[in-house]
Amino acid sequence: MPSSSNITIFDTTMRDGEQSPGAAMTLEDKVELGRILDQMGVNVIEAGFPNASNGDFEAVRAVGAVLDNAVLCGLSRAQPRDIERCGEAIKSAKRGRIHTFISTSPIHMKHKLQMAPEQVLDAVTASVTLARKFTDDVEWSAEDATRTERDFLRRCVEAAIKAGATTINIPDTVGYSYPDEYRAIFEDLIAAVPGADRVRFSAHCHNDLGLAVANSLAAVQGGARQIECAINGLGERAGNAALEEIVMALKVRGEDLPYHTAVDPAHLMRASQTVARITGFPVQYNKAIVGKNAFSHESGIHQDGMLKHAQTYEIMRPEDVGQGATSLVMGKLSGRHAFKKKLEELGYTLSDNALADAFHRFKDLCDRKRHVFDEDIIALVDDHIAHADAAIQVTRLRVVAGTDGPQTAEIDLAVNGEAVWRTARGNGPVDAIFNAIKAAAPHEAQLELYQVQAVTEGTDAQANVSVRLSSNGRSVSGRSADADTLVASARAYVAALNRLLALQARQGNADAA
Amino acid sequence: MPSSSNITIFDTTMRDGEQSPGAAMTLEDKVELGRILDQMGVNVIEAGFPNASNGDFEAVRAVGAVLDNAVLCGLSRAQPRDIERCGEAIKSAKRGRIHTFISTSPIHMKHKLQMAPEQVLDAVTASVTLARKFTDDVEWSAEDATRTERDFLRRCVEAAIKAGATTINIPDTVGYSYPDEYRAIFEDLIAAVPGADRVRFSAHCHNDLGLAVANSLAAVQGGARQIECAINGLGERAGNAALEEIVMALKVRGEDLPYHTAVDPAHLMRASQTVARITGFPVQYNKAIVGKNAFSHESGIHQDGMLKHAQTYEIMRPEDVGQGATSLVMGKLSGRHAFKKKLEELGYTLSDNALADAFHRFKDLCDRKRHVFDEDIIALVDDHIAHADAAIQVTRLRVVAGTDGPQTAEIDLAVNGEAVWRTARGNGPVDAIFNAIKAAAPHEAQLELYQVQAVTEGTDAQANVSVRLSSNGRSVSGRSADADTLVASARAYVAALNRLLALQARQGNADAA
Repeated sequence: MPSSSNITIFDTTMRDGEQSPGAAMTLEDKVELGRILDQMGVNVIEAGFPNASNGDFEAVRAVGAVLDNAVLCGLSRAQPRDIERCGEAIKSAKRGRIHTFISTSPIHMKHKLQMAPEQVLDAVTASVTLARKFTDDVEWSAEDATRTERDFLRRCVEAAIKAGATTINIPDTVGYSYPDEYRAIFEDLIAAVPGADRVRFSAHCHNDLGLAVANSLAAVQGGARQIECAINGLGERAGNAALEEIVMALKVRGEDLPYHTAVDPAHLMRASQTVARITGFPVQYNKAIVGKNAFSHESGIHQDGMLKHAQTYEIMRPEDVGQGATSLVMGKLSGRHAFKKKLEELGYTLSDNALADAFHRFKDLCDRKRHVFDEDIIALVDDHIAHADAAIQVTRLRVVAGTDGPQTAEIDLAVNGEAVWRTARGNGPVDAIFNAIKAAAPHEAQLELYQVQAVTEGTDAQANVSVRLSSNGRSVSGRSADADTLVASARAYVAALNRLLALQARQGNADAA
Repeated sequence: MPSSSNITIFDTTMRDGEQSPGAAMTLEDKVELGRILDQMGVNVIEAGFPNASNGDFEAVRAVGAVLDNAVLCGLSRAQPRDIERCGEAIKSAKRGRIHTFISTSPIHMKHKLQMAPEQVLDAVTASVTLARKFTDDVEWSAEDATRTERDFLRRCVEAAIKAGATTINIPDTVGYSYPDEYRAIFEDLIAAVPGADRVRFSAHCHNDLGLAVANSLAAVQGGARQIECAINGLGERAGNAALEEIVMALKVRGEDLPYHTAVDPAHLMRASQTVARITGFPVQYNKAIVGKNAFSHESGIHQDGMLKHAQTYEIMRPEDVGQGATSLVMGKLSGRHAFKKKLEELGYTLSDNALADAFHRFKDLCDRKRHVFDEDIIALVDDHIAHADAAIQVTRLRVVAGTDGPQTAEIDLAVNGEAVWRTARGNGPVDAIFNAIKAAAPHEAQLELYQVQAVTEGTDAQANVSVRLSSNGRSVSGRSADADTLVASARAYVAALNRLLALQARQGNADAA
């Protein structure tokens, strides 16, 4: 059993999380998120799969370049080319880790790898040995470990340790395990495998049966000292263990589960909102820790208790996780200095030009909206950030809609600085707008998702629109906020299109390189 | 340790779930959901808190009247009036249960109840004794049990059993416990309390730390034989243990966790979608079992495995939980008979008139939309159902919107059969529409939530709009689907308003009675 009670928090939002259908992230998204994770105290950041494409390679490199403290990690299969590209990519960071994996369960070895167990064992040794040529920090994963024959798993772990792996990850790849079982696997490996005391064991849990967090904690009780997790529980299928739940469970129950993480929970809400914005995946209201209702009480019985003594129903405070009470502080009379200070409080540092522009938009908003909440300001600035480098911009929109039909949209775009004007009909105003954009800036992308949420409450709320487009198997999301849903829809569509064009341009350059 | 391996599934979607801020359900909502839960094999349905209001009382009664197999349960505090009203309400069902509770933790007794421990013990005996006068099926709960001093908890449980309780519930009210600890509480009570072998112990877990499902399963391992849970994990704050996750965890891991439920998982998706529609709370994409991505695979590595052998990454099949592949079966040429059959497959049985009307709308939709998916048909029929008894109806809408402003909406309503026409401006087209509705049918309600989701994919998708209104502390949701987002917005607002008016009328009648 390891003596330290420090738990390494390994974030895989940008790798396993990005594998969620529709959650593809751009290089800029990853850099932004990487900074936040680094600031909040995450120890290891898995930023992608460098050999998947040149775009992925560049994104991993770019994240590494902005990390002050966290270790940059890249994923690679057991193939030499994967490991070499990964080794290249992680050089951008002060400290880099190669994470290499191979399947060890009978069903995966037979159907996916079509390899015999002895061949898999050889591959473990070869892959870890090669990875160690690039860095001293090598993690090896037994994919589908929880469905792996126990004795074979021991042999594989032993081979990985002998070859120089410093972290051994035992993923519950299909989200199949339950706490007692998962804990026992760690206890067994740590007791039985020679050299187990020299490495750090790691849990990686999927939430298919709703047990990912509990399994991760059980692994720690069984001797694991790294937990792989993702913001908002993002990840393949039902996702990974949610980072925010892991961190808060260890914090709230610290007396009984005496393990520590370096994560500062005050950053959790910001990280959650950033991931929701980047992916266009909304957080459900009753999501633990970061959901809108996580700290809300409706029933008279509970409200009564809360009024008498907050701790009667609260085991943690919203402030602890950065869920500040929505504050009404800014308005028509707020000056530029106050606005700048507010932005800093909210975590935004803008250049002078960007600040002037944002302030102008803020004043505009104050004219149109009685109450300006923090969320309004965030929406406004994020919208600004998202549109900074846009190849296509919406200059004007006019829509006529209603029950009588047909709905028509008239749009003016600036496409690479050139004015284009088109009108189109559609099945509904949004369809008409999208048709008009397609006519003005022809492209092949398919609409995958269209979604509107009110950012703040009240009838004059800003609408936050997410649009997801896909083309050639890549999905990108665009988001925009405006008091007019239709204007936000047009801008969100164009934002997604701009990202897709940027991705394709980068891909084209990389392929040509 | 109990000998039976049958687990009673106790659904509290309509009680603890309804306590989520904004999830208030109408009587009709509860009856609809009650039928689904009963059909799917849920054993006990907690339908509300009869003494909270006359509306709640009537809703519990109405649910009881439609149950074929499930036990109807109502919640009551330890007060005589609560228990008597609950006893009245559950008479509507073939089998009724009174669920009475009191806080037992030091913090709750002191700050919420302001009672000494001995007074609480007396109240346990008195409340259970009174409840037994109405029914043989009495459940007693120790609120905040997981923060209760262990010896006092034993004494309370003993008192409840002596007074005639047949189910003893040990709720983790604040979502504070973890599996080992929670399991040990059950083991201790079952070993130590006289008469424990004559009653059924029950788990009720909240998900504040992401551990609700794991805690529920740990309780079963510790001897509990009832699990209280909710569809989509609905409930106060971060919600209750998700029914669908509990059911599937026990099913998928049946060899190692040899406990059985009577729930047929094929109904899980329908139940999940119904709860999402009623509450207006969307299910997050990566929600286990019922999320849109729960069975989706994006990464090349996983897709490759899936193509070679589905079980490499799937521990259950989407069909098992009613997540059917979206089937493209209906179109322009489909006749009325095929449409009726399709509706029956989807779980809808309509009267001849309603069918004729729905078929007409379906044909309309076929003219406007190339691909008609199951979800489109559901949206169309649900929309119909929702509008059957509407006091206010939208007859015509015309909107002019865009960047140039001001946005204007012109609306024609039928208000109790009388035509009313108004025009209004607003901050965005949706605000203009809502202002026009308020002008045409003046009311006091506040907008709490406005939300749009595309029901199916593609640019000609129907938009599904949810609107939540609140008035005098009650919240109601309205939903509508239309290819035109703005038309759907107007109808959803009016649907919510109709529900609110119906609630107020019922409340008024009940108060006057």
